[in-house]
Amino acid sequence: MIVYLNGEYVPHENARVSVDDRGFVFADGIYEVARIYDGHMFLLEPHLQRLRHGLGELKIRADIVDQIPAIADRLLDENSLRTGDATLYIQVTRGTAPRAHAFPKPEVPPTVYVATKPFKLHPDAHWNDGVAAITVPDTRWARCDIKSIGLLANVLANQQAKEAGAFEALFVRDNVVIEGSHSNLFAILDGELLTYASCGYILTGITRLLVVDKASEIGLPLREQGVPRERLFDCSELFLSGTTTEIMPVVKVDGRPIGNGKPGPHTKRLIGLFKRWIDEDMAAATAGHGGGARRPAS
Amino acid sequence: MIVYLNGEYVPHENARVSVDDRGFVFADGIYEVARIYDGHMFLLEPHLQRLRHGLGELKIRADIVDQIPAIADRLLDENSLRTGDATLYIQVTRGTAPRAHAFPKPEVPPTVYVATKPFKLHPDAHWNDGVAAITVPDTRWARCDIKSIGLLANVLANQQAKEAGAFEALFVRDNVVIEGSHSNLFAILDGELLTYASCGYILTGITRLLVVDKASEIGLPLREQGVPRERLFDCSELFLSGTTTEIMPVVKVDGRPIGNGKPGPHTKRLIGLFKRWIDEDMAAATAGHGGGARRPAS
Repeated sequence: MIVYLNGEYVPHENARVSVDDRGFVFADGIYEVARIYDGHMFLLEPHLQRLRHGLGELKIRADIVDQIPAIADRLLDENSLRTGDATLYIQVTRGTAPRAHAFPKPEVPPTVYVATKPFKLHPDAHWNDGVAAITVPDTRWARCDIKSIGLLANVLANQQAKEAGAFEALFVRDNVVIEGSHSNLFAILDGELLTYASCGYILTGITRLLVVDKASEIGLPLREQGVPRERLFDCSELFLSGTTTEIMPVVKVDGRPIGNGKPGPHTKRLIGLFKRWIDEDMAAATAGHGGGARRPAS
Repeated sequence: MIVYLNGEYVPHENARVSVDDRGFVFADGIYEVARIYDGHMFLLEPHLQRLRHGLGELKIRADIVDQIPAIADRLLDENSLRTGDATLYIQVTRGTAPRAHAFPKPEVPPTVYVATKPFKLHPDAHWNDGVAAITVPDTRWARCDIKSIGLLANVLANQQAKEAGAFEALFVRDNVVIEGSHSNLFAILDGELLTYASCGYILTGITRLLVVDKASEIGLPLREQGVPRERLFDCSELFLSGTTTEIMPVVKVDGRPIGNGKPGPHTKRLIGLFKRWIDEDMAAATAGHGGGARRPAS
């Protein structure tokens, strides 16, 4: 695989950064993961807008962002990824400088790393039968709206899920179920579609934005708020949304069934709609309408 | 400068890690900074014990820790740092593996990076006249007891302090002043010595432990609790503690004076005591008593 690192296209195994890279010593950087369907970068523009938002919050120069579509295009060609499932990974850090907390003075060039790789889909059973989740205390920082590479809390939660035989860990803060370790959470409760509101406690996922945007097609009133922990098992359906997770039914939490323990009708309908939205986005791109220019995570 | 990286001693500029290092993509690792006075590694053992604690919490193999004193010794020789002020930096990450949140399976060797470098002391005026601080909301995660490399909140707070012309940013959580972005905080309030209790909201500094341990020498009753935000300006003295900060008087917060705006008598006395404690630790090491084997950050 060929990857992009700081202006060069290099074999992945040669892509190395300094031990003084502020990504390595401070997690002083952000990332994006976008999905590629048969060479089409799905909803790329909202991903790039979220990247710009994060760089703005961190006061890291963002001029590189405009070049990313061309970089990604070249990587897709270099790596023969014009067909099949793939992901685009983008990471930008504040760059390399002697270690000191405050920003380097004078400013140094950001480190920019871009990679495309084939994506191995989750097993069909995940979508057909639903997955299990566990709940864990939300120990993350209060600026989850920044898609920072500081993911240790997510790593530990995700590992805990894996060890429990579950697909995802759901963070609980102040007795409210917030989101997953690498996905957003939706619930159907009392006939409404619930998802936590955009704020510092969640990463506003691009797939989440799409579902919120299209809520009217689902035929359920949308309410942007989290699920109270004590009402979790009153939900008739639960599902995760995410770039690689897409729309994934959750049928069990902490060993107890959600609803009747099977993917519910609304979730199933959404899985179907989601496939249509991908096709629409691809068609728009092919027609030169720029596909994926949906509203940003602001 | 020669540094240690994964079993090799290499020039600093050649020390590079993979873009797949979990330190670079997930902040999945921890670090330590210890102080070296004329070649003597001050309180090294408590630093290593805290490193073991962090590796244990992250379930990263910790066998390397036993080798660190010998690695550091060799680096001090290679870099001619047997005299003067220097720091020892240690970073351990979960290693290099294709990017996925959960721990790599099978396990991969941790990345181990160790560096020594000359330390440029803060200006004398910082200790003689005291420094300014600002208060900022504590946006950090709830496992600050793990000395994780996920330091973005600290970086942003420290930068805010620098931009305000201050030395340190003090984190405020739930209306309590907790600690600094790279130091612990002590206050003298109503004749007591206050510092936030060891828990997930603070990093239990080795210098903090030393001050707590020696509190009786200071002649003030110690109370391990934070300073309520609304009582900050009732404090007669404030000081920071840290490996590179040592004991640093804070004479102004958010532009308002603490006490009479000058370093107080207890802080001055502590600065003197601290120098004696360094000498004692060096003498104990020279006498073969193992110096620095004080109680760990558990």
